[in-house]
Amino acid sequence: MKIYYTDDHLAHHPKAEVHRGKMVTPHEGPHRMDLLMAGMKRAGFTDFTEPPAFDITCLDGVHTPDYIHFVQTAWARWKDAGYAGDVLPMSFPYNPRRAKPPIEIDGAAGYFCSSADTMITETSWTALASTAACALGTVESVAKGESAFALIRPPGHHAGADYMSGYCILNNAAIAAQALLNKGMDRVAILDVDSHHGNGTQDIFYARDDVLFASLHGEPDHHFPYFWGHKDEKGAGKGDGYTLNYPLPAGTHYPAWRNALLDAIAKIRNFKPDALVVSLGVDTFERDPISSFKLKVEDYPAYGADIAKLGLPTSFIMEGGYGVPEIGDNAAGVLKGFSEG
Amino acid sequence: MKIYYTDDHLAHHPKAEVHRGKMVTPHEGPHRMDLLMAGMKRAGFTDFTEPPAFDITCLDGVHTPDYIHFVQTAWARWKDAGYAGDVLPMSFPYNPRRAKPPIEIDGAAGYFCSSADTMITETSWTALASTAACALGTVESVAKGESAFALIRPPGHHAGADYMSGYCILNNAAIAAQALLNKGMDRVAILDVDSHHGNGTQDIFYARDDVLFASLHGEPDHHFPYFWGHKDEKGAGKGDGYTLNYPLPAGTHYPAWRNALLDAIAKIRNFKPDALVVSLGVDTFERDPISSFKLKVEDYPAYGADIAKLGLPTSFIMEGGYGVPEIGDNAAGVLKGFSEG
Repeated sequence: MKIYYTDDHLAHHPKAEVHRGKMVTPHEGPHRMDLLMAGMKRAGFTDFTEPPAFDITCLDGVHTPDYIHFVQTAWARWKDAGYAGDVLPMSFPYNPRRAKPPIEIDGAAGYFCSSADTMITETSWTALASTAACALGTVESVAKGESAFALIRPPGHHAGADYMSGYCILNNAAIAAQALLNKGMDRVAILDVDSHHGNGTQDIFYARDDVLFASLHGEPDHHFPYFWGHKDEKGAGKGDGYTLNYPLPAGTHYPAWRNALLDAIAKIRNFKPDALVVSLGVDTFERDPISSFKLKVEDYPAYGADIAKLGLPTSFIMEGGYGVPEIGDNAAGVLKGFSEG
Repeated sequence: MKIYYTDDHLAHHPKAEVHRGKMVTPHEGPHRMDLLMAGMKRAGFTDFTEPPAFDITCLDGVHTPDYIHFVQTAWARWKDAGYAGDVLPMSFPYNPRRAKPPIEIDGAAGYFCSSADTMITETSWTALASTAACALGTVESVAKGESAFALIRPPGHHAGADYMSGYCILNNAAIAAQALLNKGMDRVAILDVDSHHGNGTQDIFYARDDVLFASLHGEPDHHFPYFWGHKDEKGAGKGDGYTLNYPLPAGTHYPAWRNALLDAIAKIRNFKPDALVVSLGVDTFERDPISSFKLKVEDYPAYGADIAKLGLPTSFIMEGGYGVPEIGDNAAGVLKGFSEG
């Protein structure tokens, strides 16, 4: 399995995060890649492929031009305004937004954002382009019938067409799915196994029937991102029925989690997709510092094998997983289980 | 003129504020009252009246029961969750909200909030009840045909029916206007001269024709709260035409500001209200640290006299004004100009 990776992720390194009442060192930072990489190497994955060149047209149909312009210019505008640190949104529109964002960057940042934990630094765009490029790398492999992994950070599944959220700025899973369709595929399924609801991915494809989106996650009454991921969110218009949410209670252990996974897999099979994109978050792990599921190290290869039974060329896109060495073992475990499954 | 005041405002003292990229000492805190009080005394106002008892039914028609329950319980829930500091919202719904907020306090806080600068402390409710009580005190005076001033903090005009924002949690101006209607008045006008748009007040009365709302403020493309206060926001349904917005550019000096005020005053006169509520923010001052208008100390009595020409019993409700000794002189200046005008 090809693993697309580049050091460019180092260019996204926010200094602070608003978290539960105080400013803390961000849970999402370059240290995560050190943990991931160490685990990958322990598992015998030592061959990494540079991604193809980033092509900005890969964002068409995924993110709006206004949003991309915001992301690319936000830090310079923030500095020009004389503000401190990285771009940190703090004002958010509670009503339907107007067609145009405010001009002032403090207002624009909130217009294009849904949580104050997501920051943009001077060089973030370099890292973001590299995550999208790695996602495009997996698409090249999948188009040839080969599965592949984008070993990337920051994650992407909370980013919508025109907002960032939950450490996510570009939605790499959505970029991969759209790129597969652009290559001539008719249907692509996205399976989101991160412990948080993939609200951005859901939102991007909510009214479409060419992408099936299925997400297993902490139920929204108690888990970030809180406002989405309920069972009754099923898609809209011709997308009705093409969004599948599996909200699960805090403390869910592997057997109950796997039951939901097998249901999602059965529905993905019925959808008859040409390819699969997996939003691979490993914050389902029992010792993840900001999540609440109870999966153990041995569960990751097991469910990788379950996913393999779909028999689909699969693009694995790295999402969340925080603060413990096992995130690398668990990401590698899914890939090993899938490859051997 | 009776001035309603109580030391209970001391019970609301958030420790930190997210502002332009970092955590800072809040611009809104008890030190503001020291500055206001000193200026009031310099101007010869030395007689302060304790407010009547707070009556929670004064919130009917202004704030929703769910929101009030949130405000009253938020701090205890935050502590129970093991979080640090005061309640600091960080996740915000970007789509129309579901009918019920998330259960988890971190999610509920964002559900009932529109900016990460607004915090709830252990004893905030004591202070909030006292600001509403002072507003009710002015209503008792106005019902007798006498104007009065609620010398209060925190301010209120950014708080909507079910959200806090911009340091505001209860909307004292809206509480005063509703209480005047409850006393049998047919029509009440609210004039908001704070340098920021009174988005909460506007929102509460947007579809009603018994309250005319007029606001002079920094135009939203460049000024907090950013997402409201455009000229084309005029009310909805039977409230159409009963919202008047005067967005003004950064750096506006008194003559242009007064032109807008006189237009608003003329329209208030045409509305033939039984009473007037003034959201008295003095952050229009040229040296206000977080605002951008250029009013000078001598302009405040001048526009107080302009307001007096309406000949209406008037409830003055203290809103913003930050960080400089002149906030007290300017608040007192409006009252003196009004009384002598």
